[in-house]
Amino acid sequence: MAVSVDLNADLGESFGAWKLGDDEAMLGLVTSANIACGFHAGDPPLLLHTCRGAAERGVRVGAQVSYRDLAGFGRRFIDVTPEDLTAEIIYQIGALRAVAEAAGTTVSYVKPHGALYNAISTHREQAAAVAAAVHAVDPRLPVLGLSGSVFFEEARKVGLRTVAEAFADRAYRPDGTLVPRREPGAVLHDPAVIADRVAAMTTTGHVIAADGTRVAIDVESICVHGDSPGAVDIATAVRTRLTTEGIELSPFS
Amino acid sequence: MAVSVDLNADLGESFGAWKLGDDEAMLGLVTSANIACGFHAGDPPLLLHTCRGAAERGVRVGAQVSYRDLAGFGRRFIDVTPEDLTAEIIYQIGALRAVAEAAGTTVSYVKPHGALYNAISTHREQAAAVAAAVHAVDPRLPVLGLSGSVFFEEARKVGLRTVAEAFADRAYRPDGTLVPRREPGAVLHDPAVIADRVAAMTTTGHVIAADGTRVAIDVESICVHGDSPGAVDIATAVRTRLTTEGIELSPFS
Amino acid sequence: MAVSVDLNADLGESFGAWKLGDDEAMLGLVTSANIACGFHAGDPPLLLHTCRGAAERGVRVGAQVSYRDLAGFGRRFIDVTPEDLTAEIIYQIGALRAVAEAAGTTVSYVKPHGALYNAISTHREQAAAVAAAVHAVDPRLPVLGLSGSVFFEEARKVGLRTVAEAFADRAYRPDGTLVPRREPGAVLHDPAVIADRVAAMTTTGHVIAADGTRVAIDVESICVHGDSPGAVDIATAVRTRLTTEGIELSPFS
Amino acid sequence: MAVSVDLNADLGESFGAWKLGDDEAMLGLVTSANIACGFHAGDPPLLLHTCRGAAERGVRVGAQVSYRDLAGFGRRFIDVTPEDLTAEIIYQIGALRAVAEAAGTTVSYVKPHGALYNAISTHREQAAAVAAAVHAVDPRLPVLGLSGSVFFEEARKVGLRTVAEAFADRAYRPDGTLVPRREPGAVLHDPAVIADRVAAMTTTGHVIAADGTRVAIDVESICVHGDSPGAVDIATAVRTRLTTEGIELSPFS
Repeated sequence: MAVSVDLNADLGESFGAWKLGDDEAMLGLVTSANIACGFHAGDPPLLLHTCRGAAERGVRVGAQVSYRDLAGFGRRFIDVTPEDLTAEIIYQIGALRAVAEAAGTTVSYVKPHGALYNAISTHREQAAAVAAAVHAVDPRLPVLGLSGSVFFEEARKVGLRTVAEAFADRAYRPDGTLVPRREPGAVLHDPAVIADRVAAMTTTGHVIAADGTRVAIDVESICVHGDSPGAVDIATAVRTRLTTEGIELSPFS
Repeated sequence: MAVSVDLNADLGESFGAWKLGDDEAMLGLVTSANIACGFHAGDPPLLLHTCRGAAERGVRVGAQVSYRDLAGFGRRFIDVTPEDLTAEIIYQIGALRAVAEAAGTTVSYVKPHGALYNAISTHREQAAAVAAAVHAVDPRLPVLGLSGSVFFEEARKVGLRTVAEAFADRAYRPDGTLVPRREPGAVLHDPAVIADRVAAMTTTGHVIAADGTRVAIDVESICVHGDSPGAVDIATAVRTRLTTEGIELSPFS
Repeated sequence: MAVSVDLNADLGESFGAWKLGDDEAMLGLVTSANIACGFHAGDPPLLLHTCRGAAERGVRVGAQVSYRDLAGFGRRFIDVTPEDLTAEIIYQIGALRAVAEAAGTTVSYVKPHGALYNAISTHREQAAAVAAAVHAVDPRLPVLGLSGSVFFEEARKVGLRTVAEAFADRAYRPDGTLVPRREPGAVLHDPAVIADRVAAMTTTGHVIAADGTRVAIDVESICVHGDSPGAVDIATAVRTRLTTEGIELSPFS
Repeated sequence: MAVSVDLNADLGESFGAWKLGDDEAMLGLVTSANIACGFHAGDPPLLLHTCRGAAERGVRVGAQVSYRDLAGFGRRFIDVTPEDLTAEIIYQIGALRAVAEAAGTTVSYVKPHGALYNAISTHREQAAAVAAAVHAVDPRLPVLGLSGSVFFEEARKVGLRTVAEAFADRAYRPDGTLVPRREPGAVLHDPAVIADRVAAMTTTGHVIAADGTRVAIDVESICVHGDSPGAVDIATAVRTRLTTEGIELSPFS
């Protein structure tokens, strides 16, 4: 199957005096950094600092766009109109792009964050609004997200390239969707187990679902979480294992 | 003297449900629109709408950058560090630029707003921080501001083009600075008087100061206020008068 | 039927440099002022000013609580957890209460705003969260809202007094609910027509629905809008008409 | 000298997804908790949680009021007008008071935070504005702050009780003011050294300044920092040492 795979994580999610995650360490492990754009996290000085770190290490930068919700960290659905959402996403991508360019890199893709990510897997109007925003900024920008989502349908309608990601530390259901976080066993914690799964996903294009079923999944990028306890250990284990398997870690093409 | 002059006004300063100024009318009168960037005013949908209006009417768009202060409308000095300020200005210019480009235009210059405008006329560290931000985004972007300001000194140091503006409705002191707003007679209200002054400034490069002195001033652009009562009447009077005098209204070169 | 009725309107909804509605005029017309609490509108200086105006004119003050959403003016549903919502409502009521008390009055009731008002007419968890917040602040505080709503059910469960309001300028459906704003004829604009309806509602406890049906409604308070064009004219017409009918305008008991 | 002293720390300074400090541990060590009010930190759910923790452990709650500046954590001077500042402080105290009361305690004092704390040690207009706000909420509320500050002068003018605090981990100058943070040796880190100093301050009313001078200082409360690395260790060392010396740790009277 794949001889190379992308490893992505959410970075730049601190804000002002508040720190979240170990961006320095994660930048040494991932190939793509989904950097916040200020609407759920990420004040401009932090974003500039994070983009500089990404540029120095050759890590690709993506715009991690969100609902406008600092207090909720972008984790709450907001019933914003499609028109407003499109403008908000354009604004965020543009803000991060200027910051990234000042840091010597640029925005190479877009990944929705949190509640927006979840909402547009089924909410067609908001999905289309996000796709329209990305297209308006640059129709060549790929979007990173969930295979089979309404967002991907809408993104393709306007000609955007879609890049499917798989989750390193999440259990899957037999239909290829994720086991909801509130259910037992939804999140995996053992770095070795996670590394095994990722290696299998990448080499075979399959994952073993929670019920033991073997499920085909699209994997162009592997998402590792940057802010959970053990995030650095997990990303390290995944990276080491993939390298051992002879799989190249490189940004999606 | 000048056979053409630029007319600029602050636009895009509404926010969400709150409206400020008559942007539609002003877009029919000015040649340059200083559009807010979301830090003191201007939510993304409004900014997109305003940029579209500017694009349709051939009005040039500038980024009106500010301290982060919605509650104070950017009118309060904030003792932000130069490093933070630089990042905040880059972020704002980038956000507006993406919005402007989605609307079919772009950001052609930068004008600081409110308390930031006032502060950097003398505050060298913040002035240099703003200049560095503009330079980082695009060294060819001119900055609009106050002749003789520390900001202009710092902007020229990094190679930025500076464009001096005069104020249509403000009284001047003999040294070419503005009469502070809290003093009587600081702000002029009669459209005819204002139009006369602007015509004189533009054709002779001089203004009559509050004490009757004739003072030389740099005028590459005339600032008319967009949100004061009578703003539209004043801008109309100025435009009509300049046209009558045979002065072309066009964006600064 | 009633020989007296309360007249309420949303006030204190400006923010910083942005003005909304004619609070001065409305304070001369209503008996209860639903004053914003800073989460959808209302900066502290404005709230203090508005509370002083209410105190001077003997207008009762209520806390108009909202989702945290300045950019959306509280008009967008947010899927906030009940625990978070309870805390946010307590915070808002407390903030306004201190401001009101500094102005010589106090908070005498609570009215949810915008999308929160709409959501909790059916969203039981959020409804219970708001009721719990009001109860936590002061179990004697009445809540103003929609008769038949889930919010009223939850409010009564914890022992709160519920005060039913009718809308002066909205069309009703035969089941006593409002015609949605997006439908034609949903909002009435003619002050004379509106005044007639309010007089009828108040004296007979009935309203003529959009289809001509006569519908019984609970009316302890009449809501007039403070920020629509013609708001002052409508409130004046309603007040005059009620007075002419011999109906006393006074705060609900 | 004193046989009892108060130990205060800043708590409730997380925000949404972002955590700062170890509030649980600190609540077991201090006698007074300066709890943020939402303007520089502290979302309502966190404030409610922190107030509950304080109530359970019998720790007194104070309102830690700030400039409105989440992005700057209240650490940047803002040139807000005295009128606006008064209203903002009233709002904050009221918000926290309602939250505290819902948690079974109340706000027993007020302590300005960060840049506001520093500014009003000399900025008379803002100092008077804060004093007026506290007085407006409750003239019996003491204010915690810096002995000799303009704030204390203004607070006493309106009849407020002032409570002088000393800093456990800061070096002093011979005139009793603090060595600025940017100077070497300004902040002490060794728990044992800090505990010794605090014991000496409390028992003798003197501190050894950076130049070796013995300086008299007012000590009704000792401030320990809650968010620095080693904060818990330092507070533990201070508490243990004071107890060993036979000094009772109890809230200021």
